[in-house]
Amino acid sequence: MSDKINIAIVGYGNVGRGVHQALSPDRNPDMSLAGIVTRRNTSLLILEDGDARRLVCNSIDGLAEKIDVAILCGGSKEDLPAQGTFYASRFNTIDSFDTHNHIPPYKDEKGNQRLGHFAEMDLAARATNHVSVISAGWDPGTFSVERVLANAFIPGSINLATYGLSETGGLSMGHSDAIRTIPGVKDARQYTHAKPEPIEEIRKGNSKKLFSRDKMWRECFVVLETDTPEERTRVSEAIKTMPDYFKPYDTQVKFVSEEELRKNHSAMPHDGLVLTVGKTGSGNRAMIEYRNKWKSNPEATGSILVACARACYRLSKEGRTGAFTMLDIPPSHYSPHSRAELLKDFM
Amino acid sequence: MSDKINIAIVGYGNVGRGVHQALSPDRNPDMSLAGIVTRRNTSLLILEDGDARRLVCNSIDGLAEKIDVAILCGGSKEDLPAQGTFYASRFNTIDSFDTHNHIPPYKDEKGNQRLGHFAEMDLAARATNHVSVISAGWDPGTFSVERVLANAFIPGSINLATYGLSETGGLSMGHSDAIRTIPGVKDARQYTHAKPEPIEEIRKGNSKKLFSRDKMWRECFVVLETDTPEERTRVSEAIKTMPDYFKPYDTQVKFVSEEELRKNHSAMPHDGLVLTVGKTGSGNRAMIEYRNKWKSNPEATGSILVACARACYRLSKEGRTGAFTMLDIPPSHYSPHSRAELLKDFM
Repeated sequence: MSDKINIAIVGYGNVGRGVHQALSPDRNPDMSLAGIVTRRNTSLLILEDGDARRLVCNSIDGLAEKIDVAILCGGSKEDLPAQGTFYASRFNTIDSFDTHNHIPPYKDEKGNQRLGHFAEMDLAARATNHVSVISAGWDPGTFSVERVLANAFIPGSINLATYGLSETGGLSMGHSDAIRTIPGVKDARQYTHAKPEPIEEIRKGNSKKLFSRDKMWRECFVVLETDTPEERTRVSEAIKTMPDYFKPYDTQVKFVSEEELRKNHSAMPHDGLVLTVGKTGSGNRAMIEYRNKWKSNPEATGSILVACARACYRLSKEGRTGAFTMLDIPPSHYSPHSRAELLKDFM
Repeated sequence: MSDKINIAIVGYGNVGRGVHQALSPDRNPDMSLAGIVTRRNTSLLILEDGDARRLVCNSIDGLAEKIDVAILCGGSKEDLPAQGTFYASRFNTIDSFDTHNHIPPYKDEKGNQRLGHFAEMDLAARATNHVSVISAGWDPGTFSVERVLANAFIPGSINLATYGLSETGGLSMGHSDAIRTIPGVKDARQYTHAKPEPIEEIRKGNSKKLFSRDKMWRECFVVLETDTPEERTRVSEAIKTMPDYFKPYDTQVKFVSEEELRKNHSAMPHDGLVLTVGKTGSGNRAMIEYRNKWKSNPEATGSILVACARACYRLSKEGRTGAFTMLDIPPSHYSPHSRAELLKDFM
């Protein structure tokens, strides 16, 4: 153990690798990687950082005394609902659970009332004196923070969040995966593009009910197993009519070679906007606009999760327990800088 | 007393009036104006809200049991240094102290070491079990928050804050006042304009030492007592050579009639940008950009101060004491919405 904040990475997909990179000493020198927990088949394999990849513990509980915070990098669909409370009852945790409507209490598809991710993690963490920072990242996460701040500072304001405003648009892993489930598709990438009209309307102070189609459109790059005109027609139709993922949107499908996909579409950029417009006092216009733009979305998420791990560690040291969202965390808690430095250089 | 958060406004200039407007029930229904404290000559006059303007207390201490938070709307140059600790030892307070380099410990012009605004208010508030939220507003304030968040989420990033990016530029009350001190000047307004070059350089990831002249230029609208070519030359020269205020900048001076000034320059718009650019993980570009734009700068500041009063009240109810900046306050503390609403509608 070091005098640094000792981090375990749980799950080693794109986000896990992003966290790993953010833990490098030139980026976050107060952090140390204590272990990576990956699941192969049903057993847990705990690996040390670096090329050696030695098994450092043969059970998850052996890791508890070696780490301060576990960053859960699993997905929101299956991993976090299954594993979240398991880890929250053993470690301080960070997760990026992003199924927005399952964060508060909700009714599942069978009509059963569910606690939701916040309350489930809160119970597990509180009962075992841990801190769990849930739904961290940029949306939910920093975008949630900006929505709450702008709403408090401009009461009665209207708000729009949208994604993929940059030239390339934003790469959606979920939608790319969905295309790959279609038979005959060898590989695919999907970019989400913001439509400019609703942004302009909100800027003018005009609020109206927006449907998915009004806010964004979808651009797909597809590699076929066998590239024929008939296959193109069939796969294009299968994409455009796919419920939830593509049917509610205007969708363009472009067919490319495998080389072209690898060459031009291997990055994972994403970007977004939170725009808030309202009035102050006697009716004077007020606007707050928050934009981010990432060349690598999983690295961005990883970088934010590491700052959240610092905040989590401090909350735990203060004796706090239970679940927290980024709405519950003072900005200074994320910072590597001391109070004196913050007052001098950041105010 | 009501079951609302009872607010006193201390100082009734532009910002005090902005706070008054933000306290209206359609904007912040959980707030109530308990009194306005104004200084006429050397005595304190405590007025009730509304046209009646009855004297409700004949001493400041009589007000203590009637209010939860006092919002100090005096200036940073003379009012807050003289009165801050007086109020902080009697009430929970909010202030918008904006002399950035006097917030931490500093050396005054005689070379004496001074505690700085944070530590002075912290001592006064802590000794009397009050909470003082200092240096609130948008810079220092929300811009400080955004600087700290972006720096934590993109470690090693470079940052620029600049002002007056909109067509009109941003109205600076301090610089307008400075022009009015020149003999022969009847009235004046000064607009600050951002220069685009440093913004473009930071967007490209290029950081270099910037001087005042590189970041902004200044536009002055002046009404003369006697408008003659000689007076125009003399006053224009006096403005452009004024130390600190105008000499370090490129400055344009335009002479206008009193009617024109009243008609075209009676609004108090301001706007700004916090731009952060860096890299994540393996060297991928990352950018966070925060913009605000206010038709009325004092109303905007007033609106933010009222949200800070809500946070201050909650910190006090939690048993916290001492000075806080907006860096120390969880976003949810500013919000009128319950935890359940925040989890459902804002995450």
